[in-house]
Amino acid sequence: MTKNLSMSNLPENTRLLKALKGEEVDRPPVWMMRQAGRYLPEYQVLRSKYTFFERCETPELVAEITTQPIDRLGVDAAILFSDILVIPQALDFDVTIEKGEGPRIHNNITSTEQVDNIVVADIEDRLSYVFEGIKATLERLDGKVPLIGFAGAPWTIFCYAVEGRGSKNFAKAKQFCFEHPEAAHKLLQKITDATIEYAKGQVNAGVHAFQLFDSWAGLWSPEGFAHWCMPYIKQILESITEVPTILFAKGCWYALKDMSLLSCSALGLDWTVSPEFARAETEGKITLQGNFDPTQLLMPAEQIKKEVNTMINRFGKDKYIVNLGHGILPNISVDHAQAFVDAVKEYGTK
Amino acid sequence: MTKNLSMSNLPENTRLLKALKGEEVDRPPVWMMRQAGRYLPEYQVLRSKYTFFERCETPELVAEITTQPIDRLGVDAAILFSDILVIPQALDFDVTIEKGEGPRIHNNITSTEQVDNIVVADIEDRLSYVFEGIKATLERLDGKVPLIGFAGAPWTIFCYAVEGRGSKNFAKAKQFCFEHPEAAHKLLQKITDATIEYAKGQVNAGVHAFQLFDSWAGLWSPEGFAHWCMPYIKQILESITEVPTILFAKGCWYALKDMSLLSCSALGLDWTVSPEFARAETEGKITLQGNFDPTQLLMPAEQIKKEVNTMINRFGKDKYIVNLGHGILPNISVDHAQAFVDAVKEYGTK
Repeated sequence: MTKNLSMSNLPENTRLLKALKGEEVDRPPVWMMRQAGRYLPEYQVLRSKYTFFERCETPELVAEITTQPIDRLGVDAAILFSDILVIPQALDFDVTIEKGEGPRIHNNITSTEQVDNIVVADIEDRLSYVFEGIKATLERLDGKVPLIGFAGAPWTIFCYAVEGRGSKNFAKAKQFCFEHPEAAHKLLQKITDATIEYAKGQVNAGVHAFQLFDSWAGLWSPEGFAHWCMPYIKQILESITEVPTILFAKGCWYALKDMSLLSCSALGLDWTVSPEFARAETEGKITLQGNFDPTQLLMPAEQIKKEVNTMINRFGKDKYIVNLGHGILPNISVDHAQAFVDAVKEYGTK
Repeated sequence: MTKNLSMSNLPENTRLLKALKGEEVDRPPVWMMRQAGRYLPEYQVLRSKYTFFERCETPELVAEITTQPIDRLGVDAAILFSDILVIPQALDFDVTIEKGEGPRIHNNITSTEQVDNIVVADIEDRLSYVFEGIKATLERLDGKVPLIGFAGAPWTIFCYAVEGRGSKNFAKAKQFCFEHPEAAHKLLQKITDATIEYAKGQVNAGVHAFQLFDSWAGLWSPEGFAHWCMPYIKQILESITEVPTILFAKGCWYALKDMSLLSCSALGLDWTVSPEFARAETEGKITLQGNFDPTQLLMPAEQIKKEVNTMINRFGKDKYIVNLGHGILPNISVDHAQAFVDAVKEYGTK
């Protein structure tokens, strides 16, 4: 009894899609990066029962986890529960999640030959579980709120593929760029090609919007970002024409102007960027998303509400999506996450 | 047979002090943050023989380690071998350095009572070994190059004092600020008071310049930095009137204008800030220091030289101190560090 969930089926809650088009809204939409995650007790239950990959690869679990924050907090959008490392996994990298130390890639790139040997997989087939997860989620959401799909940007995926694990500075990844620039670009292009297919698959499965996360872009200088990140981000964004897109390049305050000229509906911001700076750099032309310091959710609830109100006043209610400046921390109490969401819902009513 | 090394004894190599005064130089001075450190084989020898605290607390070892990069690489300034955590140690925090996981503070602050109980120590007495280390170093330097003293800025010390260890986001430290703002300010003031005494002691012992490192300032939003960092930085800088000062607040691109108005001779920059942005924000009024991405020392030596040359051209040779944008990495080969220094020495000669 699968319902017809074609793209023309707009969700009831239209705030996110309106904000992404730059249309006027009664109040800005709100969602939180990593909202489907560890701070939620109902997620912890599933986390204790299933491995990380079981949770990502089982459509029913994806649907359940993705919709948990909608049911619990009443955010205006769902973001698919998945991981950026499904792309390297589809490219035959051996990805594991080690307890307490994050993701590991065991056959990480150490030579140019390895880059040559990477075959861009049949993403439609290899990542079909993600697309099934999207369909199951849409069914569960029942048209209430839009569903955001996502992927990691090529540089961020490259970081893990070369470094083999998380790192403070991803020096090995950068060293590979410096010593083997041609092979590095080749690898970035292969990741890009796979990501374009992946985004297409997500759009075909029915996501209403798509966010590209370049979590490690801010490790580059402005020139490094322009050289190693932007060309690949550009290709991906230009390939997605059916749904609005959000680009979040953490730490890249210096590239806001350039990013605002991309084929993109909104830019995500971290909390080091003031609303005034971001609006000036982007000349008020593009929708902005962010940028509450995730540690500020440790504030007393009343103070969270006050700060959120100030933040909305500074960004303005239109062309704006309320979010955190990075993922929600695992130790945030649900009450505080709720205060964040409620502050947006109460905006302008008091 | 200690030589008379009063402050009026200017070092032979005057480039750093000239650059700090904004005076014209033949070429910019060059030194590297963490230049007395793990990438040097001669440092590794001492590291294998003595514990970290033995190295910091023995004046002869301090002198030897501090002068190693002068002898080996020919940089234009020495920076004292020590650690920012000597201040919390002097305030009776129990600091240890654990292999592979960095510094730990075992009696870290978890209550406002603990803050009340901190007695600002007699720094002259508690940190006399640092001052003896400075004197031994000056003797060893024999007037060749200036010696830079340093301390951590109060917020960065606070991070360790509350968090008890390194952290990606120092969420506990920020949480303490949010939940106990009065006690947090009290702790920052106590750290500030101790740091002012510490800076005085270093100046009295003969350092030619003083750098304040706010390594974790960039974790704040612009408002957070203005509230939790600036007032204490300001007090310290204003207390140092005898020697020029350098402020390095990593990640605080947004505060360059405000910092340029402080009582300060130079601002350190990380590599996310372009020379043009930094000069524009500071209106060309203050000396700038930096900002080579430390991972770029992994480039082939010839490329390092090319990049350094471009960097100097962009900053301009005057009111500029060549440095990295953060500490040198332990795995950099000495040849590459040498290429960095040589590129500066060859600047304008080819």
